Amino acid sequence: MNLNELIPLITNEVTTDWAHTQLHLKLPQQHQLHLISDIGKHIVRGKHLRPLLVLAVGNILGTCHASHHLLAAIVEIIHCATLLHDDVIDDAPKRHNQPTAWYEHGNKASILVGDYFFAQAFRWIAALKDPLVIHDLAQATQIIVAGEVQQHQVRNKLDMDAGTYFSIIQAKTAELFKQACHLSAKVSNASPEVTQACLSFGQALGLAFQLQDDLLDYTSDVSGKTLGQDWLDRKTTYPLIMAYQNQSFTALIESAHKDQASVTEITALLEQSGAFELTRQKISEYVDQANEALDTLPSHHLTDLLTQLVKTLEHRVY
Amino acid sequence: MNLNELIPLITNEVTTDWAHTQLHLKLPQQHQLHLISDIGKHIVRGKHLRPLLVLAVGNILGTCHASHHLLAAIVEIIHCATLLHDDVIDDAPKRHNQPTAWYEHGNKASILVGDYFFAQAFRWIAALKDPLVIHDLAQATQIIVAGEVQQHQVRNKLDMDAGTYFSIIQAKTAELFKQACHLSAKVSNASPEVTQACLSFGQALGLAFQLQDDLLDYTSDVSGKTLGQDWLDRKTTYPLIMAYQNQSFTALIESAHKDQASVTEITALLEQSGAFELTRQKISEYVDQANEALDTLPSHHLTDLLTQLVKTLEHRVY
Repeated sequence: MNLNELIPLITNEVTTDWAHTQLHLKLPQQHQLHLISDIGKHIVRGKHLRPLLVLAVGNILGTCHASHHLLAAIVEIIHCATLLHDDVIDDAPKRHNQPTAWYEHGNKASILVGDYFFAQAFRWIAALKDPLVIHDLAQATQIIVAGEVQQHQVRNKLDMDAGTYFSIIQAKTAELFKQACHLSAKVSNASPEVTQACLSFGQALGLAFQLQDDLLDYTSDVSGKTLGQDWLDRKTTYPLIMAYQNQSFTALIESAHKDQASVTEITALLEQSGAFELTRQKISEYVDQANEALDTLPSHHLTDLLTQLVKTLEHRVY
Repeated sequence: MNLNELIPLITNEVTTDWAHTQLHLKLPQQHQLHLISDIGKHIVRGKHLRPLLVLAVGNILGTCHASHHLLAAIVEIIHCATLLHDDVIDDAPKRHNQPTAWYEHGNKASILVGDYFFAQAFRWIAALKDPLVIHDLAQATQIIVAGEVQQHQVRNKLDMDAGTYFSIIQAKTAELFKQACHLSAKVSNASPEVTQACLSFGQALGLAFQLQDDLLDYTSDVSGKTLGQDWLDRKTTYPLIMAYQNQSFTALIESAHKDQASVTEITALLEQSGAFELTRQKISEYVDQANEALDTLPSHHLTDLLTQLVKTLEHRVY
């Protein structure tokens, strides 16, 4: 089963909760300023993986209530705000095979409506009223944004170590997956052990998800993004780092980078260097960690679906 | 006395509190990511009017403590975050006679570090721990950003009514002045009457300040911005609305707008139409409101300085 087949199954298990979450997420679409309502429509696209994690964890732990619905809306709109600004940074015309807000409405509208989404997130965060959860979400937002800054700062840098790469993806991707699961357990009043297991699950899942995304960027064009977009954007990701660290390939990669070689050329080099295989191995490590954390959670149909979800990440093609 | 002479006098009255606030505001300068620390230096420029209002109100009401210092830092960094994004929107090379972050670091860094400043604001807001204050600041941020969106949405629109103009400046400028004074009174545990007076003072001051800014945009180049920048950016502000509403000038203004007339030409038309005088009258109305609110506050050397501050707005040349 692939990710796009699995997501409706998870959604199906949390139908009522997802309907409540959507009531929040549809608010920007009803805004009187047409730029906000137009760009607000982009929120309902996408896979909604992060809010579904919130709702799944809540249901697995036996209690999914209004705070979970709000938390689910918060993680999704923070994600959407970063996407809006990402698309400006990357001049990205398409996402999920549809034109981006940046493409439809331009730089300025995307920047300002991205700010509006962040502000909407903080309105909802404030409405959670729990000071510890508010603190964690405010901190998470700062970590995520700092990760985006760091990624921008090292753009063009080929000789990046894996440590820097993991610090970036931990911040820009895994942090939100981690908090989606961790805070869902927290507002469910789960035991410290279960809360920690949820945190570890979200964290490992987030890292595996981003590694997989960076692998698919070179190996699959099914996602609706351009093949090799990271290479074209001069973003150094795990496969490129692994190839560059393979001494038989360092010089080749270096000149490919200098000469801005084509996507076909760099992809062939990465394949030959064993970088894709090393990336798959790394994904497997995080998949194992995610599974280990899932073992601690109560038995539930949704726990089985999350196990399936982890499996799709290992063999994900889009 | 002008605004730039008065601000050191106010600062002088709140020296210790301002030093505490600066400890917060200097944090981004110490960030390990150089884009954040470099752009963080822009925070210490500027007039710091909003944080000084927080500290002045606290002192007037007899109690200025750690929450006031944090609140002062919050209103300043929210202001800086919006400026960073404004400068990207407006392609503004200079501010306070110094190159903008956008000019020095480009679009992408300014967008992402602006996001970081917003996130920093929310970390500090969360640290205030008071749910009502957290709610008000989250709401204020959303109002401010929606004001920026609305301003962008009506750009190029000449036939704007004064109501739309006031709804924009209320949101993008007066809201932060209002909350700086209102929440400072709130964390000082002031009486409902005094809290309301502080709110009204901040609100009227913010409206007068923005009206004055929009007037000076045409009439003074001392601020270090380009004369007539709003006209060049096709932003319709109060003087232009007043001239357009003067039936003897409507057609002239319309063709000046269509033909993108020079700043000298439009400024002459605005002057002849009486639009500058009408703007000065409107400023006087808000100055009166601000003074009325100040009358409710306790006698204090800082209350006198705030009265002076209001006076400088009426006769401000930069």
